[in-house]
Amino acid sequence: MKIVKVHSPATVANLVCGFDILGMALNDPFDAMKIKLLDDPRVIIHNKDEYNLPTEAEKNVAGVVLLSIIEKMNNTIGFEIEIEKHIKPGSGIGSSAASAAGAAVAANNLLGNIFSNDELVQFAMNGEKLASGVKHADNIAPCILGGICLIRSIHPLDIIPIPSPDLFVTVVHPQIEVRTSDARQILRQQILLKDAIRQWGNIAGLVTGFLKNDFDLIGRSLEDVIIEPVRSILIPGFDEVKTSCKEAGALGGGISGSGPSVFMLSKDESTARSVESVMKDVYNKTGIDYNTYVTTINKRGVEIIE
Amino acid sequence: MKIVKVHSPATVANLVCGFDILGMALNDPFDAMKIKLLDDPRVIIHNKDEYNLPTEAEKNVAGVVLLSIIEKMNNTIGFEIEIEKHIKPGSGIGSSAASAAGAAVAANNLLGNIFSNDELVQFAMNGEKLASGVKHADNIAPCILGGICLIRSIHPLDIIPIPSPDLFVTVVHPQIEVRTSDARQILRQQILLKDAIRQWGNIAGLVTGFLKNDFDLIGRSLEDVIIEPVRSILIPGFDEVKTSCKEAGALGGGISGSGPSVFMLSKDESTARSVESVMKDVYNKTGIDYNTYVTTINKRGVEIIE
Repeated sequence: MKIVKVHSPATVANLVCGFDILGMALNDPFDAMKIKLLDDPRVIIHNKDEYNLPTEAEKNVAGVVLLSIIEKMNNTIGFEIEIEKHIKPGSGIGSSAASAAGAAVAANNLLGNIFSNDELVQFAMNGEKLASGVKHADNIAPCILGGICLIRSIHPLDIIPIPSPDLFVTVVHPQIEVRTSDARQILRQQILLKDAIRQWGNIAGLVTGFLKNDFDLIGRSLEDVIIEPVRSILIPGFDEVKTSCKEAGALGGGISGSGPSVFMLSKDESTARSVESVMKDVYNKTGIDYNTYVTTINKRGVEIIE
Repeated sequence: MKIVKVHSPATVANLVCGFDILGMALNDPFDAMKIKLLDDPRVIIHNKDEYNLPTEAEKNVAGVVLLSIIEKMNNTIGFEIEIEKHIKPGSGIGSSAASAAGAAVAANNLLGNIFSNDELVQFAMNGEKLASGVKHADNIAPCILGGICLIRSIHPLDIIPIPSPDLFVTVVHPQIEVRTSDARQILRQQILLKDAIRQWGNIAGLVTGFLKNDFDLIGRSLEDVIIEPVRSILIPGFDEVKTSCKEAGALGGGISGSGPSVFMLSKDESTARSVESVMKDVYNKTGIDYNTYVTTINKRGVEIIE
């Protein structure tokens, strides 16, 4: 029976000023998955990593995505999946999205690619709903399509790929727990119009910077006056990391998704490596365990390996 | 003594979802101005139109701009200016900005173009402050630079030209009074985060649509869930005009600046003319006097004629 193996990339949602509407795929880290078609409607999950994620399909992010596909196929099929996560759950770089999107793309491949990207995003959002309580596509869309994606709207789904220069990305994951649902709850439901205006100036600037390859404009626009001031309180060392990384030459950056990971964009690899050193210096002082990644924008999205 | 003659274009601020950050210059209508350098620090104003605007420099939009330039030049010079307005004051298509920007560009030309565009925008914003109580650049910037401009930030000033396809613009000016200061006061100072998210998805979509020449995306993104629902109440016939114009093929549109003018974007001239007919039909029924314009995006900004 046919087996498909995929790599499903980490993603950075929000990109500072684009809360809930922008996301970017990374070349590193990524999850690996092997998936096989079954002829009866069930999902068998094998975890090949250290994270002890649930193996009941209803409680597993990849599982609920596969269940939704099985339902769409009128319960005529099932899947057996082996998941080897390298993206730590709770890191804020799209671990749940990688599981969800990887499962959706792999299953679609087994089924002869009968679903469109929009349909795959819809299936995969069921996984995000399980993980965070909210259907959002700012990790899912770039995970499936690659590159930087604008999610203009969820209802109806409207995903727009945003071409960008080949930026380098440095990520630090301080190993503290920030639950996505908590990070959502501390946000104010009402914001000042004047802050919103500043934010939409930045969003328009950021997207224009990507499309025009204008590095300075990208840097100037990586400013968030609404979400970051609230969420950054949950991340020890955030202000120092941000200031020091920009001094080290980063164009800018901020919280990845709802945190705790922090990402920075740089024009070249040597700057991205200096930025990594700065991140290490800050977190070595705090005594908090951390991981770092120096990587680039993944332009392919979930990839069929064999 | 050298005399400079300029044409200063009408402008559409906001472009629906880009409140306070986007503006676009039009080829029609425009103001005409003649300006002459004096060797003593005063401003003499001659109005060559029917609008009875003040001729005291401190109370005249072009006057305060020229006074600020005179002050910058250490009171060593003055200006005599003749203003022939074709853009009706209070129409919502940048009448005050045309006076302010036209005066600034013309004066700069007389002085040997010693000021940068950013400096000209700063001078011209003094005119906007007089007209509306607030320094804003979303009419001034496109009036001076032409095309579509993003004003990412006022402090510090950060203006980004947004290339766009050659769209056609239809404008209807229903001749009711909407004062800019009133149109600002009815806005809520607090907005819902979920509305802001929808708005910044649209802004990012609109700018991407312009940069990628994606007409459908431009159309889908011309949606304003924050300002239009409040301000459109001040404009009789607004909902009907908007719905009918889109049925007639317009990509979309909305209130120009703070109104009362309403603009629509179209892909081609014949659609733009159909849209004009629809606008006329709506306002003929209401009994409100109106003007219409069918024009294109002005890519040059204030133009030195001789």
